[in-house]
Amino acid sequence: MTGRDDPDQPRPADANALWGGRFEAGPSAVMEAINASVDIDKRLAGEDIAGSMAHAEMLAHCGVISSEDAASILKGLKQVRSEIGEGTFAWSRALEDVHMNVESRLKEIIGAPAGRLHTGRSRNDQVATDFRLWLRTACDRIDGALAAYQSALVEQAERHADTVMPGFTHLQTAQPVSLGHHLLCYAEAAERDRGRFADARRRMNESPLGAAALAGTAFPIDREMTARALGFDRPMANSLDAVSARDFALEALAAASIAAVNLSRFAEEIVIWTSRRFAFARLSDAWSTGSSIMPQKRNPDAAELVRAKPGRIAGSLHGLLMVVKGLPLAYSKDLQEDKAPVFQAIDDLELALAAMAGMAADLTFDTANLEAAAGEAYSDATDLADWLVRELGMPFRDAHHVAGSAVKAAEAKGLPLSQLPLGDYQTIEPRIDDRLYSVLSARASMESRTSYGGTAPVRVKEQVARWRKRLEGQV
Amino acid sequence: MTGRDDPDQPRPADANALWGGRFEAGPSAVMEAINASVDIDKRLAGEDIAGSMAHAEMLAHCGVISSEDAASILKGLKQVRSEIGEGTFAWSRALEDVHMNVESRLKEIIGAPAGRLHTGRSRNDQVATDFRLWLRTACDRIDGALAAYQSALVEQAERHADTVMPGFTHLQTAQPVSLGHHLLCYAEAAERDRGRFADARRRMNESPLGAAALAGTAFPIDREMTARALGFDRPMANSLDAVSARDFALEALAAASIAAVNLSRFAEEIVIWTSRRFAFARLSDAWSTGSSIMPQKRNPDAAELVRAKPGRIAGSLHGLLMVVKGLPLAYSKDLQEDKAPVFQAIDDLELALAAMAGMAADLTFDTANLEAAAGEAYSDATDLADWLVRELGMPFRDAHHVAGSAVKAAEAKGLPLSQLPLGDYQTIEPRIDDRLYSVLSARASMESRTSYGGTAPVRVKEQVARWRKRLEGQV
Amino acid sequence: MTGRDDPDQPRPADANALWGGRFEAGPSAVMEAINASVDIDKRLAGEDIAGSMAHAEMLAHCGVISSEDAASILKGLKQVRSEIGEGTFAWSRALEDVHMNVESRLKEIIGAPAGRLHTGRSRNDQVATDFRLWLRTACDRIDGALAAYQSALVEQAERHADTVMPGFTHLQTAQPVSLGHHLLCYAEAAERDRGRFADARRRMNESPLGAAALAGTAFPIDREMTARALGFDRPMANSLDAVSARDFALEALAAASIAAVNLSRFAEEIVIWTSRRFAFARLSDAWSTGSSIMPQKRNPDAAELVRAKPGRIAGSLHGLLMVVKGLPLAYSKDLQEDKAPVFQAIDDLELALAAMAGMAADLTFDTANLEAAAGEAYSDATDLADWLVRELGMPFRDAHHVAGSAVKAAEAKGLPLSQLPLGDYQTIEPRIDDRLYSVLSARASMESRTSYGGTAPVRVKEQVARWRKRLEGQV
Amino acid sequence: MTGRDDPDQPRPADANALWGGRFEAGPSAVMEAINASVDIDKRLAGEDIAGSMAHAEMLAHCGVISSEDAASILKGLKQVRSEIGEGTFAWSRALEDVHMNVESRLKEIIGAPAGRLHTGRSRNDQVATDFRLWLRTACDRIDGALAAYQSALVEQAERHADTVMPGFTHLQTAQPVSLGHHLLCYAEAAERDRGRFADARRRMNESPLGAAALAGTAFPIDREMTARALGFDRPMANSLDAVSARDFALEALAAASIAAVNLSRFAEEIVIWTSRRFAFARLSDAWSTGSSIMPQKRNPDAAELVRAKPGRIAGSLHGLLMVVKGLPLAYSKDLQEDKAPVFQAIDDLELALAAMAGMAADLTFDTANLEAAAGEAYSDATDLADWLVRELGMPFRDAHHVAGSAVKAAEAKGLPLSQLPLGDYQTIEPRIDDRLYSVLSARASMESRTSYGGTAPVRVKEQVARWRKRLEGQV
Repeated sequence: MTGRDDPDQPRPADANALWGGRFEAGPSAVMEAINASVDIDKRLAGEDIAGSMAHAEMLAHCGVISSEDAASILKGLKQVRSEIGEGTFAWSRALEDVHMNVESRLKEIIGAPAGRLHTGRSRNDQVATDFRLWLRTACDRIDGALAAYQSALVEQAERHADTVMPGFTHLQTAQPVSLGHHLLCYAEAAERDRGRFADARRRMNESPLGAAALAGTAFPIDREMTARALGFDRPMANSLDAVSARDFALEALAAASIAAVNLSRFAEEIVIWTSRRFAFARLSDAWSTGSSIMPQKRNPDAAELVRAKPGRIAGSLHGLLMVVKGLPLAYSKDLQEDKAPVFQAIDDLELALAAMAGMAADLTFDTANLEAAAGEAYSDATDLADWLVRELGMPFRDAHHVAGSAVKAAEAKGLPLSQLPLGDYQTIEPRIDDRLYSVLSARASMESRTSYGGTAPVRVKEQVARWRKRLEGQV
Repeated sequence: MTGRDDPDQPRPADANALWGGRFEAGPSAVMEAINASVDIDKRLAGEDIAGSMAHAEMLAHCGVISSEDAASILKGLKQVRSEIGEGTFAWSRALEDVHMNVESRLKEIIGAPAGRLHTGRSRNDQVATDFRLWLRTACDRIDGALAAYQSALVEQAERHADTVMPGFTHLQTAQPVSLGHHLLCYAEAAERDRGRFADARRRMNESPLGAAALAGTAFPIDREMTARALGFDRPMANSLDAVSARDFALEALAAASIAAVNLSRFAEEIVIWTSRRFAFARLSDAWSTGSSIMPQKRNPDAAELVRAKPGRIAGSLHGLLMVVKGLPLAYSKDLQEDKAPVFQAIDDLELALAAMAGMAADLTFDTANLEAAAGEAYSDATDLADWLVRELGMPFRDAHHVAGSAVKAAEAKGLPLSQLPLGDYQTIEPRIDDRLYSVLSARASMESRTSYGGTAPVRVKEQVARWRKRLEGQV
Repeated sequence: MTGRDDPDQPRPADANALWGGRFEAGPSAVMEAINASVDIDKRLAGEDIAGSMAHAEMLAHCGVISSEDAASILKGLKQVRSEIGEGTFAWSRALEDVHMNVESRLKEIIGAPAGRLHTGRSRNDQVATDFRLWLRTACDRIDGALAAYQSALVEQAERHADTVMPGFTHLQTAQPVSLGHHLLCYAEAAERDRGRFADARRRMNESPLGAAALAGTAFPIDREMTARALGFDRPMANSLDAVSARDFALEALAAASIAAVNLSRFAEEIVIWTSRRFAFARLSDAWSTGSSIMPQKRNPDAAELVRAKPGRIAGSLHGLLMVVKGLPLAYSKDLQEDKAPVFQAIDDLELALAAMAGMAADLTFDTANLEAAAGEAYSDATDLADWLVRELGMPFRDAHHVAGSAVKAAEAKGLPLSQLPLGDYQTIEPRIDDRLYSVLSARASMESRTSYGGTAPVRVKEQVARWRKRLEGQV
Repeated sequence: MTGRDDPDQPRPADANALWGGRFEAGPSAVMEAINASVDIDKRLAGEDIAGSMAHAEMLAHCGVISSEDAASILKGLKQVRSEIGEGTFAWSRALEDVHMNVESRLKEIIGAPAGRLHTGRSRNDQVATDFRLWLRTACDRIDGALAAYQSALVEQAERHADTVMPGFTHLQTAQPVSLGHHLLCYAEAAERDRGRFADARRRMNESPLGAAALAGTAFPIDREMTARALGFDRPMANSLDAVSARDFALEALAAASIAAVNLSRFAEEIVIWTSRRFAFARLSDAWSTGSSIMPQKRNPDAAELVRAKPGRIAGSLHGLLMVVKGLPLAYSKDLQEDKAPVFQAIDDLELALAAMAGMAADLTFDTANLEAAAGEAYSDATDLADWLVRELGMPFRDAHHVAGSAVKAAEAKGLPLSQLPLGDYQTIEPRIDDRLYSVLSARASMESRTSYGGTAPVRVKEQVARWRKRLEGQV
């Protein structure tokens, strides 16, 4: 087939034998370049063949084609599948898309019966079927990848339930927290991401097959049968909807965008934590890169790339929202622009998830440095205020004010709260006594926060146990 | 309180009495302008007060504050609520946000006990609680609005199950369809939109309250109790997650974006259908506008505005994805930029839904013109091909080719297929006989497509019945 | 080099000899997959080699390396360039990016002197240089493509300066316009697009080379010399800016997004104009496609695809805005995510421009139908109102009201304004006389609008002449 | 005018007297809510009145209206302007937009002549004129704000030209740089932002006025005259373009998005620098906020909000790109959705610029800590490699390898490079001698990088001088 795809050659009018009956001149090279989708949609070949097999068996079952023709079609499709799997299949841009490439090859192999396969269906329902099948599997893979990421987090969380680190708000030291507690926060977000993918999967799992071009068909087909064969929950109830809906792809892209944003937050923290100034954690050589000019560098490139991934993924979501906006029913060619962004977004998300699971497992923490940092910057000032409320019965707002004054006094002397003399405290609030000092340490602070969902190690360990149970057997 | 918000006046250091204990100079005017959120978040006042009431009752129940203080707080909050409802409440930008405005007024009313309310919580969990409550209610309103829109569609679909119109692909006449079938396509899409909002609502319905600043609290609070009181399914399991997660807002924005895109497709069709050249439908005066210069104009402005709405709504989604991307834990002030886009998107979507429900009910169709158009442009060519498959046993691909040649012959003579002489058909394919003509009409074509989900009126009426049952009692 | 890129194989620690001095274990397969950019950035090979040549010559000129080494480097780089051009170059993902692939091969060819090339520069300034060079050339290509599109529009506009068609607002018939006038509207928009690309090109045309990693260098290099050699206007004045700025890419993406949106508007019109109901224009077979199921279809696929292109292009813009947002100085790996969206957007825009230039030239118009449509729907009502102002001295607002009443009267009788009897007019406004009828036709209306920029053919022809002069010698 | 805007009241058919001639029923409440734009576009009142004044004077000059009528109109418009300025103007949603509100009030004031103002124009060209005027002024304000921000940066840069700090790549310590050099990087980016706004301003500065609804007008108007009066460079050359183009708004939004992203990078650095772990800089109380629960907190809220601003601004750009995509000519109501995003984006950008100028001036730096940090993490390893190249004639790649080994040896001993004994160096590379130690300090490193654009203080001071000259008289 040499030269068939040469863009500089005029193509004969019958190049596309599948719809060439009425056309007198071949499309121009630019037309072919903009129109052909096979470079992208050939990725759907497995799903396309599975759909055709189910369709052929149903057509025979319903008496629309003979069982001999169906057998021939099935055999031919298996051969096509093998050729694609082995890399010997000759893809052609002149044949536009994956559907016509497959069908054209099928005809070369089995001859006339190939022409009976496209009865009671159209490329419009065919591509919608293929794409839903592909995306359904992608959702399943992503669910597994999210679970693996969660497992890595839970493992580290278990190891570090008792490790105290500074919790931040506004990147300012806020209150001491358990490192395990911090890491489990990302497991929670990942769980919601899994939920979003599960919901998207469930909603997309309906079969468009047999909607034909847009109106259904007069052939006595059985859409329940093909739906069942392909693992769909049911056939779609409206043929126009079947060929024109793309909200299933938008929903998956939205789930991917949100998941990527969630990952990017931890990625940012890895960049910050592995910086020299923070020095909270270290990535092994396997997850670090060097510099072509600076010999001392250990760069957290993978974390930075994960941080960047929401860009392209959300860009894909926004691109497809823009494409579908304002499109009249039923199928418009604009919808062909749906697959490239979805493939890109799913690929990027899977890569990001694998990298984050890897880094989450790889990180080693400098626990001494974390504990030291946890005690800095008056992170126990809230504990002071809470003590005033609890022991002296002060309203919290007043206690907050007293604690603020104590911080100011301690800052002026360059001391932590735990070393500010009792006299200084009593100048501010005479009722303070030396029981106060028992709450003034990072570890005491962390351990005291035992409310449900709080950072006390006892709570964190309960959560680790819950996660273990949830993830059992999933990874 | 005259002058309190004058941006040109330096503010005293104690203007913000809630965190002023350690600060020596007041924020500048620009700082206040960029920092204050009350102009936007005052919309959360109802939720904020409800959350404070639940918190106060729980604090008393757990013995953290006295029942007298709790009673005083509840009474004061009710008064604040009344003042806001009546429009007599004096909002202050110097007090930054809704939380401090409410608490500050509470203190004016009840004095010291007001200072005990903020025990075991923080603005970080408070705002997350308020926002989830607000958005939960918005999801419920949108569900109702989607149901009302579906009802309008179903009503019209019932009226027009037998009305034949041209179905389009690529805006080219494709195959005749039932107008009712076409309209029900949008009911399907709206059903998935409802599903997305329901899933988002379910996932967001967890209580952050009591997570405090980020780490939980040492006070013996009962987060289950406040969660229950506020209608949440459960308290959130990780305090860092409680204050820093915004994927619930992103998910709602994604659902809104997709719903708006779905609406925009019908809106585009209304614009096209009411154009002079299509003349398929007409909007009443109530949904038309005129021109300041052209006296004859009837413009479908509302449809155009609905078509445009995905812009701002998806822009809000994109904006918030960008805001959250790369934010470290726990709370960062960036998250304050979450409410304006969500309020705008929800407002816009509700307006668009109301307008679409109104227009869907308002449209009157020119059924004669629709039927004439349905018969144009060889819309029955597929029926010809299908006849060749069914009656002559031709493979569909060959039949497609024959039908293409017939269209070419008919075009050359300026005739529809139904009037092309049998001789011309037989020149192309000798086995064709005059039984063929029975399938060559728009109505026959529509009625023949009886496959499940197909456009035959018998199928459409079944779907109308299904929808009636589904929507019963919902609107 | 078999197996070098096998992702399942652990790689030896020295695989990346360019920064391997301190690392003990090789990056994992996932790390390599997320980190390697060579699959994408190899497209910069030509620019990379040109930059290296300029750098080597400058290093020799400044005495940093010997002229023998420089000669050897230049000879080696030419060989690399040939190998890449001929497709014999063995790209390796283990070598990460285009820079290391080229340099590594250079070392194989010339040995030790290759190691002297990377003096006084870094990959950070190198990639910024390559990318600016590539994008500068892309801007030039796009300028040419926009000019070709304008030429096609001007040619059609000249042919159709006198063709009357309905002008639309809100897709409702508004006032008759010249088809040539309508087409020239897109030439105006394209001119602004050219301006935006020219401005972007000018602003990006500064040399980062020699900024080294981020801080400049202690070697006595001459950045003016390399800037000149590579056609840059000047070296960038701040080394941190040189390696970290990406606003040049954002600006080009913004220009591309706006240009794509402008094209999408004409594309939408082609879809509408070639629809059966409008039937204003026809695309030849070269720009039409058929259907796999409906034999009669002629689909304007290319126009639909152009209409869809803003999706991915604007998606790329938004993705990169998100990536760069919040990145600290200087270079971060996130910036590696800049090239894929830019390449995609430029490719898509070039394809869209070629398709639009082709379709703009290809369209044939049904002038009789256009003129008939121009007279429909009371498109001359404004002319009536203007006549009342001009001849009877009525305020326009009153004239508008009278004309509105006349339209109502004519609608009731099913007549155009030109056939409404004088008596009916005089019932509404007694001073109307039969001179009125001279302004009541689509052609008269079009010809009357002679204000500057107006649609009268005499004005359109002046504009065509202006465009001819502007475009002379450009295409 | 009580009750005129009550959304629950049916409105009389003649409520909108400006286009009500042919309508029989008033728009519904939802219709009015979605259609009315006055809540947003009243911000254009000043520009609207200026445009009307120029139009009236031109109409009189050209003899289309009498000079008495023109005088009356001008006087009336001045009164309207006063009423709006004083806040006594009664805006009405029933009158849809700013244009009709102004014209309606004008009619109340001056009676019949008001009806002559709308001759030879339409709301379509009117709103385009108003919006361009508004945005032109906004561009000028933003230019000034960018210049003020640059001035604050240059002032700090001058103060800190000799301050050494760690330069980062990947947030890892890379090479020592001058703090002044670092700050000037942002002045460079701001200069390009100014260029983008200047280009956008120039391109938008053409007058749509007199394009009327879409086709121009038959009245003998002088568009040059109104263009001149309003400060436009020329009238637009195509009337369809005049009313339908919105690329001017898109371009301004793109410039704003890029500028916001540039700002967000410095904002991120302020957040990092003021963190306890970095402790590079401190914001005064004026730019810090506290916590409602943690008494010790000093949060850089303004920096975080600036970091977040690209979200909404780029969201606005994305939204408007989506709105305009695929809109046919000429004016469609979708275009009404242009103003809200532009107003929001400009407001947000101006606020962000003011905040950044304020913070840039406010920051105080801990120079001792910066210098200590600059010497950490082997930031002089490149200097070591460069020394090997310069003094021993090693190829850079080999020198990089030697330096990497030295870092490894120093790390093993816990020493900085400057304290690693000569013997250890000579074990790695025997030719090293004790001259090496002269390059091994952060300050020496910074001072050595004297290439153009490099970080040596001598270079930085030259740049400061260049900036002083550039900014002179601008702020």
